[in-house]
Amino acid sequence: MLRCTGYATETAQAPLAPFTFDRRDPGPTDVQIDITHCGVCHSDIHTARSEWGPSLYPCVPGHEIVGRVAAVGSAVTRFKAGDLVGVGCMVDSCRECAACKADMEQFCEKGMTGTYNSPDPHTGGHTLGGYSKAIVVDQHFVLHVPEGLDPAAAAPLLCAGITTYSPLRHWKAGPGKRVGVVGLGGLGHMAVKFAVAFGAQVALFTTSPSKIEDAKRLGAHEVILSRDEAAMAKEAGSFDLIIDAVAAEHDINAYLNLLKLDGTLVQVGAPEKPLPVQVFSLIMGRRSFAGSLIGGIAETQEMLDFCAEHGIGPDIEMIRMDEINTAYERMLKSDVKYRFVIDMASLPAAA
Amino acid sequence: MLRCTGYATETAQAPLAPFTFDRRDPGPTDVQIDITHCGVCHSDIHTARSEWGPSLYPCVPGHEIVGRVAAVGSAVTRFKAGDLVGVGCMVDSCRECAACKADMEQFCEKGMTGTYNSPDPHTGGHTLGGYSKAIVVDQHFVLHVPEGLDPAAAAPLLCAGITTYSPLRHWKAGPGKRVGVVGLGGLGHMAVKFAVAFGAQVALFTTSPSKIEDAKRLGAHEVILSRDEAAMAKEAGSFDLIIDAVAAEHDINAYLNLLKLDGTLVQVGAPEKPLPVQVFSLIMGRRSFAGSLIGGIAETQEMLDFCAEHGIGPDIEMIRMDEINTAYERMLKSDVKYRFVIDMASLPAAA
Repeated sequence: MLRCTGYATETAQAPLAPFTFDRRDPGPTDVQIDITHCGVCHSDIHTARSEWGPSLYPCVPGHEIVGRVAAVGSAVTRFKAGDLVGVGCMVDSCRECAACKADMEQFCEKGMTGTYNSPDPHTGGHTLGGYSKAIVVDQHFVLHVPEGLDPAAAAPLLCAGITTYSPLRHWKAGPGKRVGVVGLGGLGHMAVKFAVAFGAQVALFTTSPSKIEDAKRLGAHEVILSRDEAAMAKEAGSFDLIIDAVAAEHDINAYLNLLKLDGTLVQVGAPEKPLPVQVFSLIMGRRSFAGSLIGGIAETQEMLDFCAEHGIGPDIEMIRMDEINTAYERMLKSDVKYRFVIDMASLPAAA
Repeated sequence: MLRCTGYATETAQAPLAPFTFDRRDPGPTDVQIDITHCGVCHSDIHTARSEWGPSLYPCVPGHEIVGRVAAVGSAVTRFKAGDLVGVGCMVDSCRECAACKADMEQFCEKGMTGTYNSPDPHTGGHTLGGYSKAIVVDQHFVLHVPEGLDPAAAAPLLCAGITTYSPLRHWKAGPGKRVGVVGLGGLGHMAVKFAVAFGAQVALFTTSPSKIEDAKRLGAHEVILSRDEAAMAKEAGSFDLIIDAVAAEHDINAYLNLLKLDGTLVQVGAPEKPLPVQVFSLIMGRRSFAGSLIGGIAETQEMLDFCAEHGIGPDIEMIRMDEINTAYERMLKSDVKYRFVIDMASLPAAA
């Protein structure tokens, strides 16, 4: 076993604190990774605090992981020691169901194994995430991080990046399409960058006049203040696709009404409470309200390669591991542009 | 002008009663129709009672119209006196926008003219529907009713028929697909018949054990009692497409969870109040919640021809015009199998 330090919370109410635990020794198909960076996702907060149902404690969050390969199992062919690699939201799946065979492991019919807070068949306990010095993951769920990418900025691509890249590809954002992005946060700012890179006409919706300049700097062609009813009314029926990255309660019908005939609004933020949908908003214009969940492993690799080729990455703010509780409070106030990344060198190797 | 008798209501609270009014003389492209039958749709009740917002009074409902051509304008080429014809939910649209040019007049960007309760550019008043002895309609919005169809049973095809045919075609119900239909009423029983005719595996969802035998008689391969939680849980993730024809409040998430990866639930009933949607139901499985509105004129003709070719039609109960208020009360108790059709011969030509 591999002794490992990290940060964990023991209950839904407790702050994160130093924690020491064991990682399994790498099996034949495993890759052992020394974690250098880990992005901080809203899901980390939801899970640490049992906001999506009771979590498994101790909880070590973190599923935007970048690091260097430290060792590989005997049957590993795709990685060697020293490779720059990433791990996202999943560390296993059945590999046999229709979804897995179609490279959509995130929709595994038996349920994928999350990077944290999932039952761990290897230990009999539960999985522990990337707020830690090391992780051991089956090679199928390890990504190559192209050397052209900044390792720190690559970390948020593993969740915020793929979560927005995948629906923009699936619903065919590109030239001639008008794409809206709701909310300029960790997910939203990546959605803007990808939609622009794919050649779409991109409008950002925000409640904050203070974000207008920043949205334009990130590439948005237009910014629409969603509390300006006249501005919203003017846009009725004019969007092919809207990516909604708002995880709080909000009026979804205001955005459904902006879709063209056969347009789709894709929710990638996950509000705790149900969103009331006016059925007339869907019936008029044969519109769809859809959801999307991260992306498969092959698509995640495609996304990383696309980012390296086109020089795309998130805007990040580096923090030390011991700043994580403050970072959570700032995230809840949207006080981050646009993703915190933990410098794992700030965490001592031994407690 | 053409003096015409019908049934109207003068306020949201009043019952329907005999009413005499004028139809315009047919213009060059108009078809004048002697109405023989008119189906009774839930929309008629909603509109008569201002349940979808304030209606225009006097209100003559009815948009499932079948009759014989009495006269045609000088430029009419597609119809002649004596032809069996139909008129559905629309009597006009701009004919110039992208939706109209794509044969989807129901989504006309300037707004289609409804058969009743729409501003009427010809009269300066509002349109008056099919609970009447005659109607005058531009030939573009008149359908040929194949002589092989029973004229009475053809009437509900103009709304209940096309409303279910169109989404089943658009979302490709057919062999190898598992299709669910929620609710066995006017729309639901047509959805079952069409989905079976298209070659899909069809399950009907109902709250009423009393409807099991009838659903099977109509062709459903399976009937699932939606209040049986164990039966519902067993069907999780197993449907390609669900057509939801329930116009009352109900738990939509229970059905979203039954969809396969990339499956779609299409709402064709229109509840007054918003339906709360659990976003996780959409995110898990990249599912879509969509709406659909009747169909275009070309598709409505295609549907009528399909029905004649395959011997498909609604199960109907004939009523006299003066039974309409009782029929409404019975519909609100779901006491109709499955569509009332007014025999317009029961209405005197003069008041």
